[in-house]
Amino acid sequence: MDSVPFTWRAHHVGLSVADLDASVDWYRRMLGFEEESRLYIDAIPATVSFIRCGAFRIELFLVPGARALPDDRRDPHRDLATHGCKHLCIETADVPAAVQQLRQRGADIVFERTVDGHRMCFVRDNTGNLIEMIEPFESGERGT
Amino acid sequence: MDSVPFTWRAHHVGLSVADLDASVDWYRRMLGFEEESRLYIDAIPATVSFIRCGAFRIELFLVPGARALPDDRRDPHRDLATHGCKHLCIETADVPAAVQQLRQRGADIVFERTVDGHRMCFVRDNTGNLIEMIEPFESGERGT
Repeated sequence: MDSVPFTWRAHHVGLSVADLDASVDWYRRMLGFEEESRLYIDAIPATVSFIRCGAFRIELFLVPGARALPDDRRDPHRDLATHGCKHLCIETADVPAAVQQLRQRGADIVFERTVDGHRMCFVRDNTGNLIEMIEPFESGERGT
Repeated sequence: MDSVPFTWRAHHVGLSVADLDASVDWYRRMLGFEEESRLYIDAIPATVSFIRCGAFRIELFLVPGARALPDDRRDPHRDLATHGCKHLCIETADVPAAVQQLRQRGADIVFERTVDGHRMCFVRDNTGNLIEMIEPFESGERGT
């Protein structure tokens, strides 16, 4: 193979949302994010909030007049039937326990399943954006 | 604030792509990912490839008959004008050096800019999916 051309790490996922303050609050209550900075980017134009949990961020974009999330993007399987960037997936040790916590806080759980012996779920944020949760697995445990 | 309900870490981003082998190859050559596993998920249905670089993965989905990436999703700013999950952003120490490497390998660079004093760029993968690259910044360096 070619050598890796440069080193990098995952920094954030960008989400376009309907209500910036409500989204900052949702991600704080559900996943423990804290707002790190807020800025206005003329070139888009958008108001942007960086929220952070540990070393990982989400960049929330509020674009005036933005169109609502298409219906098919609210469903994990239908969403995949159009090419594109689909969802962030987070890893947690006990998905059912996490789902219980999220339900208690009012989250919209799409489904919980076991795939290839691994427990996982999808949740929608307050805009409808999909977030997957899975339990840790090692190489070779999934698929071939 | 409420306490964080459970611990988690970012595991992967899901991308729906047009050609699974071509995408595995693109992410290997451009960003150093290696394929970790491949499986078929009946419930979607889709063929799935997990590709991995360090502790971070991308889950590539190949759905037969999937619609092409909408044109507005190929442009970083127009993409934000519809709510949804938009792009993965990776952090690297020297964006212009990374862009040079990517150009040499044939990547489709959308633009390079300096925002709030920080160098960044967007690149499209072989499906057209947007990936952002930025340089490290500390809390308070961006925005308020």
